[in-house]
Formats: sequence, structure tokens, C-alpha cells
Amino acid sequence: MSEVNDIAGLDRLIHEPARLAIMSILYAAEKADFLFLLRETGLTKGNLSTHLSKLEEAGYIEIEKGYVGKLPQTLCRMTDNGRQAFDDYRRQLKDFLNNF
Amino acid sequence: MSEVNDIAGLDRLIHEPARLAIMSILYAAEKADFLFLLRETGLTKGNLSTHLSKLEEAGYIEIEKGYVGKLPQTLCRMTDNGRQAFDDYRRQLKDFLNNF
Repeated sequence: MSEVNDIAGLDRLIHEPARLAIMSILYAAEKADFLFLLRETGLTKGNLSTHLSKLEEAGYIEIEKGYVGKLPQTLCRMTDNGRQAFDDYRRQLKDFLNNF
Repeated sequence: MSEVNDIAGLDRLIHEPARLAIMSILYAAEKADFLFLLRETGLTKGNLSTHLSKLEEAGYIEIEKGYVGKLPQTLCRMTDNGRQAFDDYRRQLKDFLNNF
């Protein structure tokens, strides 16, 4: 049963639903700021921060802290590695679904 | 972004890769015994037991303990509710993938 092995090999970092939501947004948008992600995902600030840090540690996203006037702004952007990992993940999932 | 909300609503009980593998096997097979599942999923006995219990608690599978001759046998079977939940899960995933 090859599909079972495929599932075991799924990128769990992306598979987790909150991170899957974040990756989906960043895949579509060039950049997204923290507040936008907060609103779109419905996560709490703490949870969103934790998930973003994990994605950053994996090299899937880059986080840029700066200011807009005097207001702090946290901008997130998907890296080329992140884009590649997300493409691979979706391909695996599609292959899995095609088995039914 | 409707797909993001869809992801948040994914059935996390099925989404977890080990349980996704178990559900895939039981969806295809009428019944599967513990040793077969062990071999197919590559999980440890303890992990497989834990995941099976969670799926049983959710009413997605039924577990029947019996004997073949003098050898104990644990048979697992997907319930109608489990089949429905798995169909729903795959539909959500497919909708999500169609957004890219």
C-alpha cells in the first residue's frame, strides 16, 4: 500500500492545520503582516507567534520586524524553500487522494 | 479566504498522519487485524493501540477481540460514521487543493 507510506512521509510541519492555513496565505500573498495573519487564521497571538517561529526555524518563511511610522510591524514572507516544500506537500496529498 | 476557514475545520482526529494511514487502510479493507495494521503503518504496538483507541472512542472504528484457535486476534472495522467522516475529510482536502 504505497499511499500509506506516502502519508507517513507527509511534511508534518506543514500538515498541522494552523500552519497549513498560514502557509496557504503566504503562498498566495507576497508578504503578509502579523495582524492580517491573525485575522485570517483566527488564531490567538501566542499561537500564531509559535507557529510562525516554527516555520521560520524550518526556513520556510522569513520574518521581518520593522516600523510603519511609529507603529511596529511584523512582515512574513515565504522563502523559495517554503514554496518548494508546500508544492511537494500538496503533490503528496493529491497523490493520496487519487487513490480513492 | 474561504479555504483557510475550511482548513481550520478539518477533522483533526483523521488529519493526524498515523490515523490517516489507519483510516485509509480500513476504508479499503472490510476488516484488518492488529498485526496487519502494524506492518502496513510501520507504527509501534503502543502507538498503534493508542491511535486505534482514539478512533474507537470517536465511533469511527469498531474493535473486536477474539481468538483464532488459541491465538488472540484483534480485528478492526470502520463504522458507517467513520466512512462518512473520512469521505467528508477527503472532500474538504480536495476543495482545499483545488484553490491552488
